[in-house]
Amino acid sequence: MRAIVFENFKTFPSLKDVDKPTPGPGEVLLKVAGAGACHSDVAIYDTFEEGSPGAQKPPFVLGHENSGWVEEVGEGVEGFTKGDAYLVYGPIGCQRCRACSRGQDTYCENAATNPYMGIGLGRDGGMAEYVSVPARNLVPLGDADPIAAAPLSDAGLTPYHAIKLALPQLAGGGKYALVIGLGGLGQLGVQILTALTGATIIATDMKEDAMATAEAAGAITVPGGPDQVEQIREITGGKGVDAAFDFVGVSGTIDAAMRSMALQGRCTIVGIAGGTFEWSFFTNPYEATLTNTYWGTIEELHEVVDLYRAGQIEPEVERFSLENGLDAYRKMEAGELTGRAVVVPHEA
Amino acid sequence: MRAIVFENFKTFPSLKDVDKPTPGPGEVLLKVAGAGACHSDVAIYDTFEEGSPGAQKPPFVLGHENSGWVEEVGEGVEGFTKGDAYLVYGPIGCQRCRACSRGQDTYCENAATNPYMGIGLGRDGGMAEYVSVPARNLVPLGDADPIAAAPLSDAGLTPYHAIKLALPQLAGGGKYALVIGLGGLGQLGVQILTALTGATIIATDMKEDAMATAEAAGAITVPGGPDQVEQIREITGGKGVDAAFDFVGVSGTIDAAMRSMALQGRCTIVGIAGGTFEWSFFTNPYEATLTNTYWGTIEELHEVVDLYRAGQIEPEVERFSLENGLDAYRKMEAGELTGRAVVVPHEA
Amino acid sequence: MRAIVFENFKTFPSLKDVDKPTPGPGEVLLKVAGAGACHSDVAIYDTFEEGSPGAQKPPFVLGHENSGWVEEVGEGVEGFTKGDAYLVYGPIGCQRCRACSRGQDTYCENAATNPYMGIGLGRDGGMAEYVSVPARNLVPLGDADPIAAAPLSDAGLTPYHAIKLALPQLAGGGKYALVIGLGGLGQLGVQILTALTGATIIATDMKEDAMATAEAAGAITVPGGPDQVEQIREITGGKGVDAAFDFVGVSGTIDAAMRSMALQGRCTIVGIAGGTFEWSFFTNPYEATLTNTYWGTIEELHEVVDLYRAGQIEPEVERFSLENGLDAYRKMEAGELTGRAVVVPHEA
Amino acid sequence: MRAIVFENFKTFPSLKDVDKPTPGPGEVLLKVAGAGACHSDVAIYDTFEEGSPGAQKPPFVLGHENSGWVEEVGEGVEGFTKGDAYLVYGPIGCQRCRACSRGQDTYCENAATNPYMGIGLGRDGGMAEYVSVPARNLVPLGDADPIAAAPLSDAGLTPYHAIKLALPQLAGGGKYALVIGLGGLGQLGVQILTALTGATIIATDMKEDAMATAEAAGAITVPGGPDQVEQIREITGGKGVDAAFDFVGVSGTIDAAMRSMALQGRCTIVGIAGGTFEWSFFTNPYEATLTNTYWGTIEELHEVVDLYRAGQIEPEVERFSLENGLDAYRKMEAGELTGRAVVVPHEA
Repeated sequence: MRAIVFENFKTFPSLKDVDKPTPGPGEVLLKVAGAGACHSDVAIYDTFEEGSPGAQKPPFVLGHENSGWVEEVGEGVEGFTKGDAYLVYGPIGCQRCRACSRGQDTYCENAATNPYMGIGLGRDGGMAEYVSVPARNLVPLGDADPIAAAPLSDAGLTPYHAIKLALPQLAGGGKYALVIGLGGLGQLGVQILTALTGATIIATDMKEDAMATAEAAGAITVPGGPDQVEQIREITGGKGVDAAFDFVGVSGTIDAAMRSMALQGRCTIVGIAGGTFEWSFFTNPYEATLTNTYWGTIEELHEVVDLYRAGQIEPEVERFSLENGLDAYRKMEAGELTGRAVVVPHEA
Repeated sequence: MRAIVFENFKTFPSLKDVDKPTPGPGEVLLKVAGAGACHSDVAIYDTFEEGSPGAQKPPFVLGHENSGWVEEVGEGVEGFTKGDAYLVYGPIGCQRCRACSRGQDTYCENAATNPYMGIGLGRDGGMAEYVSVPARNLVPLGDADPIAAAPLSDAGLTPYHAIKLALPQLAGGGKYALVIGLGGLGQLGVQILTALTGATIIATDMKEDAMATAEAAGAITVPGGPDQVEQIREITGGKGVDAAFDFVGVSGTIDAAMRSMALQGRCTIVGIAGGTFEWSFFTNPYEATLTNTYWGTIEELHEVVDLYRAGQIEPEVERFSLENGLDAYRKMEAGELTGRAVVVPHEA
Repeated sequence: MRAIVFENFKTFPSLKDVDKPTPGPGEVLLKVAGAGACHSDVAIYDTFEEGSPGAQKPPFVLGHENSGWVEEVGEGVEGFTKGDAYLVYGPIGCQRCRACSRGQDTYCENAATNPYMGIGLGRDGGMAEYVSVPARNLVPLGDADPIAAAPLSDAGLTPYHAIKLALPQLAGGGKYALVIGLGGLGQLGVQILTALTGATIIATDMKEDAMATAEAAGAITVPGGPDQVEQIREITGGKGVDAAFDFVGVSGTIDAAMRSMALQGRCTIVGIAGGTFEWSFFTNPYEATLTNTYWGTIEELHEVVDLYRAGQIEPEVERFSLENGLDAYRKMEAGELTGRAVVVPHEA
Repeated sequence: MRAIVFENFKTFPSLKDVDKPTPGPGEVLLKVAGAGACHSDVAIYDTFEEGSPGAQKPPFVLGHENSGWVEEVGEGVEGFTKGDAYLVYGPIGCQRCRACSRGQDTYCENAATNPYMGIGLGRDGGMAEYVSVPARNLVPLGDADPIAAAPLSDAGLTPYHAIKLALPQLAGGGKYALVIGLGGLGQLGVQILTALTGATIIATDMKEDAMATAEAAGAITVPGGPDQVEQIREITGGKGVDAAFDFVGVSGTIDAAMRSMALQGRCTIVGIAGGTFEWSFFTNPYEATLTNTYWGTIEELHEVVDLYRAGQIEPEVERFSLENGLDAYRKMEAGELTGRAVVVPHEA
């Protein structure tokens, strides 16, 4: 079958023929519906070297945001019907630690010794005609469009997880949420906050069209600039925001988020741009917490799909055939994508 | 000044002249904007006898759902400006126990020895031109309409408190809430659930127009009848509802709520009709909880006002002048009110 | 190998020769260290008929409270070393629903169509020389005694799960917990409450020696009798208990628990004696919740083992060789056991 | 009466005669049992200048950790009996905002315009024969020793509040807590953690006798030094601590705390030494939160007293007569105190 393969560090991936996988025990072979291209793929093939933290050993098929239709099941797998559509939870941990036991493979206690991080992350992913995945990683999509669903497995799950942990801060009337960075994850963050809370959502980005999209999804927008924090505080009546989500993560955005916080709020840095922040007792609003986050749990992916099936969230996607799939990465690198790129191996 | 006074047990209240109150230390005198008439007032003047649990000793001015404009402040009160509009938290506890310290006077540890339950509940209420209340019980309304706000202090706060305690069960995608009984509290319950959660809201009542109103506020409705629970379960895909709020509280509605519950859900009986339910380990969905509730806290009333000022909730009210105020009770007894009755002593 | 087999409904189990199991893909074969005998086994072989709710189809080896040493691993299993000791999580769900994904197989969404409930529950259990279990169900015991550990997988996990859900009610100073029924689960309940909370623990049972054991573990005891609830309330200064755990579950104990509750407390019925309780709005302390519970999660079993390895809990056990294993059930039926019966197939 | 008065910025306090106070409306006059001397008093009279953040305008009687016996009640106060002992909640906010409504005057929304911060903090405190305080600020001590209780109102409440917010992280078996700095607050922190959790408590200080005291209260101690964090991680089996409480707050201790954290842990900086910490996404264990804290709530002070009355916590105090009260500050400045200094105006 055809597949997009990461073959060597510091090397752009190849479109080539590989063997069609066979589902092992406990696995399900999916005919791929959609495979989202993610910025972290670029890190995999372009940034990392062998031995870099997070680097996964080539070769393997890319694609960790996957959906597909059941094609075949492996030994011991029951309860699946050929042709049914599923979304795939990407991370795969050791399956014997307490984090894996609660479906949070992202925080696997044995990550250091696992052979790979997940599907499309050291193990063959979904940028191919078929992909084999553990049955446990599948979330049913029912009759919802599986292609637009693909990015939900990362670009949806990551903000969902961050937001769910902040729901206690956003519970009730009169709450404020701040979303910094309105790319794929940030836009879904705005949609999820609109769906799940009564909070006033303040969103910001450097691109005007991204802010317009966020406004259409229910946010108030505040442009960047020297008085941005002041404007945010004014919207909140001075108290600051109860939860902030920084999908960028440079020093400037972390700083803006922290200076916008209310007492007892929660500031989550989601973006991995690697900024730093000088924390001090006297500048931290009392009991405001600063934290980071990483992806989410299997159960949360079920809940993301619930929102999608109910029409409460809708990722904006740009489709590519598998034969043109490398263009998805080329356009991503060039900053030319408008929605989340999804490679669609089997066009209708 | 003119006032509606509860003069004797088992006696319809009187409209009469009484002395205008003077604010004591720590109190604020309000010029009344609106005073909501509540079914529990009928219990006060018509149902209870001296010594009944909950009975308050006459005479006193009725009205425990009050709003008004600052007229004068008592000794030691600061931070209030004449003419500013406030909503009034009705309950008044001992002010020295831990429940009162957290603004939950409803659960005052010294309730049995307190001289009264609250404003319009053993102590003069708001069915008058003026009412004096503790400064601590005031919630600022800003420029929002204070007349339509009056019922929020009970008919808004009671469902808000019940819902806020159930937010953990309703957090995230794919959740279901059931609202039984679509009078004043139930309709506000639907509005609050719509504002604060992403849950699918299922509502039921015996009146079709009440169900139509709930639908307009975002609910799916299910009529009563022998297959009601089956229909509710079907909407939820079989699993049942994550939170139920029974604003009626007869045995039949408690039973319907409990048979509709999902595993780990929360069933709150709000209505005080006094029904009973035979609980059994084997019929209770695992970890589903059954509970009751009573009114709310001062801080929650601030949050209810936040929702109101943001346009996220809007009580439906029917206005009466003070001179025609007794008609509010007459129409309530006759079941002829369409919205919450609010007595407005000072028409514009 | 030798094993205790449930061969037919309404039939006392047999000690007989069966084939030694082979670990399937994803499984680990354990050399059994200890297998606890549980009252629910008696229901399996003596109470249920084919088709009874909860009935599991014979024949299978009994024993759902198991510990053992790694003997051999099946296909795809890594990270286990021969001879290492593990405790076994008993329930096995569908492995594809959201409950199973969070390690709470007890609440599997597909329970109705699963082939069995768990290890020793429709599938061969640990009352044998060897047992094969999914790798995911194993919790490492390190160098702690695996034989005394065996009952923790049910008699420890069940009260632990119930208590963990009530920790918010027991958080902080001045809290009270009530434990009704001081058999194996109740005694471990007292130990867990002592370890994890600062609450005053009130315990009750009909047996004086059971109460003496609970006192030694840190509880205050109150005997049964007409003024029991009054005595409990007096200990709490009148307010009632913040959490109650009824390990019996007859109507009388549920009633005592509910009449002992404080406002906002949590009453958990653990015992499956099938009692009922007539719930009413006016007798329920405000916001006190009534609920039930069932077993626990894999992650919680890790935490139970943490308590055990730290010496914070210690089940009292009575050992039986495998050849004398049927005596464990005979003595259980006769009420002659003093601790939890553990069958030990491989004596040192 | 005699009192210790802060008369001018940058000036050591004076022992002098002042008028005995009269309780205003809503107030209670206490005959002082004990008044704790706190390091923050030194900041008041020695560090701050007029206009410094936190500076309170002289003159006023010092002492914000107070206990006493009811002497007289002001207008409108009921429920107090002359001679009964109470502990005093020190902060006083505006009494009309939502933070004050929940008994958390520390986070009063109108702090900037309040006339003072609290009792002994801009308003006359307890370093005198008598002190008048709002009735709402009183917590009953029953027959517990009121003198040793005095420091609980700050040195007890501050760690209690910080710990209570971290109880979710410490819930269950296998948890670890780190306490840095074993002065008055840190030692009470260890006692509170021992009382309320099952966590393994790791404590550290530069003084050996302070570590010995913490060990006697149930902690494992780890000395400072280059491999301190490594030692802490080793105790936790590598995962790190679930909650850290830094009662020092210099850059070095914040750094040690943060490098000791587990995934999803909570790191609370309590000490106000003003250190800073360079936070980064890549060094922060996922979802570990960094925060600060300030004092506590009235309800929490009730719970602290519950622990004290039950013998679960016991502050170590060093008593001074009022005539020798200035020595308490002299010894504090010289670092010569062994326990918390308590001025006792009325010796038995």
